[in-house]
Amino acid sequence: MIDFPYLADVCQHTESKIVMLVVDGLGGLPHPDTGRSELETASLPNLDALARESACGLTTPVAPGITPGSGPGHLALFGYDPVKYLIGRGVLEALGVGVELALTDVVARGNLGTVDGSGVVTDRRAGRIPSEESAPLVKLLGEIEVPGVEISVYPVREHRFVMVVAGDGVGEHVGDTDPGSEGSATLEAKALSADSRETARAANDFVAAAARALDGRARANTVLLRGFSRLPDWPNMAQAYRLRAAAIAAYPMYRGLAELTGMEVLQTGSTFAEELDTLEDVYSDFDFFFLHYKPADTAGEDGDFDAKVASLEELDAAVPRLLGLEPEALIVAGDHSTPAVMGAHSWHPVPFLVRSRLTKDQGVSGFSERSCGTGSLGRMPAVSVMMTALAHAGKLRKFGP
Amino acid sequence: MIDFPYLADVCQHTESKIVMLVVDGLGGLPHPDTGRSELETASLPNLDALARESACGLTTPVAPGITPGSGPGHLALFGYDPVKYLIGRGVLEALGVGVELALTDVVARGNLGTVDGSGVVTDRRAGRIPSEESAPLVKLLGEIEVPGVEISVYPVREHRFVMVVAGDGVGEHVGDTDPGSEGSATLEAKALSADSRETARAANDFVAAAARALDGRARANTVLLRGFSRLPDWPNMAQAYRLRAAAIAAYPMYRGLAELTGMEVLQTGSTFAEELDTLEDVYSDFDFFFLHYKPADTAGEDGDFDAKVASLEELDAAVPRLLGLEPEALIVAGDHSTPAVMGAHSWHPVPFLVRSRLTKDQGVSGFSERSCGTGSLGRMPAVSVMMTALAHAGKLRKFGP
Repeated sequence: MIDFPYLADVCQHTESKIVMLVVDGLGGLPHPDTGRSELETASLPNLDALARESACGLTTPVAPGITPGSGPGHLALFGYDPVKYLIGRGVLEALGVGVELALTDVVARGNLGTVDGSGVVTDRRAGRIPSEESAPLVKLLGEIEVPGVEISVYPVREHRFVMVVAGDGVGEHVGDTDPGSEGSATLEAKALSADSRETARAANDFVAAAARALDGRARANTVLLRGFSRLPDWPNMAQAYRLRAAAIAAYPMYRGLAELTGMEVLQTGSTFAEELDTLEDVYSDFDFFFLHYKPADTAGEDGDFDAKVASLEELDAAVPRLLGLEPEALIVAGDHSTPAVMGAHSWHPVPFLVRSRLTKDQGVSGFSERSCGTGSLGRMPAVSVMMTALAHAGKLRKFGP
Repeated sequence: MIDFPYLADVCQHTESKIVMLVVDGLGGLPHPDTGRSELETASLPNLDALARESACGLTTPVAPGITPGSGPGHLALFGYDPVKYLIGRGVLEALGVGVELALTDVVARGNLGTVDGSGVVTDRRAGRIPSEESAPLVKLLGEIEVPGVEISVYPVREHRFVMVVAGDGVGEHVGDTDPGSEGSATLEAKALSADSRETARAANDFVAAAARALDGRARANTVLLRGFSRLPDWPNMAQAYRLRAAAIAAYPMYRGLAELTGMEVLQTGSTFAEELDTLEDVYSDFDFFFLHYKPADTAGEDGDFDAKVASLEELDAAVPRLLGLEPEALIVAGDHSTPAVMGAHSWHPVPFLVRSRLTKDQGVSGFSERSCGTGSLGRMPAVSVMMTALAHAGKLRKFGP
């Protein structure tokens, strides 16, 4: 939670609404042929108009030079210092597929993989085996029993599953069995501290039993485990900020992330249009909405500049639906940049805008990396976004006499 | 004090002078009809010229989104982290009216208020009773004696007074008797920790005696107490920065604040012109001057855009007197923004300038929120202002070999 020790003194509940649109991988870099970034290339009449009547700036997700994963990138926007609030990937994936975890459970991410006759991993993803083919295999894994602990297995999609270890004295300090690259054998799970010896043993028992259960298959004949972790026990942002907070996100990981922060994660469809349907349906029931837009990041990760431009234009067309709700504070932010020219997440500052009744005549010419860099908010740590949003929605009292 | 662990190593005494003009509530927001802020609307030939030969920027008073009271806003400018150095309102008001407090004394702010026949508070300020009418009543309160402690009462103005509780084992952890709004009875003072039980009892005795003393009056027939607090024991900024530091401020609260930081608080008149007289009179006796200009905040709090513009123009006319002294470092800063369109303090960054022999050709086009946002100092935490001032006045040695 935001590192301001008098948060409880300054936060007040009001009826005003905050809509925080998080455009995954929002920021980009200029195309080498044109010198214009994805945002500068796209035709964004609605976002540009919004930027002209907003306070704009650039957010630094974690720290200069640090490229965040999705977890830190989002946590910062919700006011959690991403260096302090760490999250295991296993936990995130488990929550994303709706697994109810106890605080004591240990979770690992699992892959179905392929090994050759001598036990060397030839494909860590079993040829990205389709979900229809993997589902019965994951079911088979779910029948494995090992002594001393309770193991449950949940499908994610394609080759991916989640393994949950429950029981007295399980520990999350267990090394990966996934070697991380093809060409070598799987690793033995090692306890990294004494409290996790039983769990490491159980993981090795599970891997051995899985290999027996999958024996004889040409692909998906082994399992690879990584990211052993446990549910963190974090302050609840909804309580801390005195918000009724809702998350509207189609993708599992972001749903899981929001749940960890105490937001109510709403059922929604798989498209952004369906997310907007949900937002409109529940608008009167909450006063903070985290709305997630994924396609910009996907296109950026694919290194597809034109697809990222198209995804931004698609988003732009949906902006009038957000404006129609007339939230007291409308935020457009990104969890990190994903420049198509890099084909990956990056450390670059991310365009940011907040529009409220107090941001008239403070805007910039349009919504881009360059123009937001000249905005009235300047460079700001992403962890300050939440307080900025609360202030603009009139949800913060004066501090001190 | 500024959170730089080698402050004593780098601070050096020099004969150079720093004048820090604090314009209370300096920053504003655009008027909805014109798109121009108070600073942009005002005709400020002197401040604009000064900005052109200064290093300019925007200060963040406490943290993004946080709206400071006058205490935190000023403390930050003097280099005290306002989240670490907290001050009770009672203490601030007591110092402001010149009460000499012992470190052990407990202080509360008091209001004369009005209750109806059934004890319900109908006016927490007794109709803002004029000082001439309240003075004899406060005198009456001063005659109240309660067992075990020594209670003193000092008038502030209108309905306001200060109550000081002295005695062995008094404690400041006492809840307000002021209910904070009209329509309910006054509260009983509650001890919030065991060390404050005697003080709570004394406060209740005082309130009961006051009600008897004021009985039969149509208004100002009760007292309301809040903000029980004690003098904080802070590092002395004059010593820490090796300054002979003077405060020139007409308003009580700012005088009290300056005294807490170790400045010498000078006798001065009630107008800014008289403050300038004082500055000129004592200029050779000190090397740091905190000079306070209040009217901009008052107009902003009143929501009076034109009055705030006028107050800034009035200030501008006085700037040549400051320049005439030729201080080695001249600072114009604000403790916080008070946009007239909000009619209240706000969290917005505050225009800032420092002029020294080193700031030629670094300036911006004029002195406003927008132009300072493009200045060479960028966004800076207000707590960095003091070190910036010292550096420009040549008062900081090199750090490290």
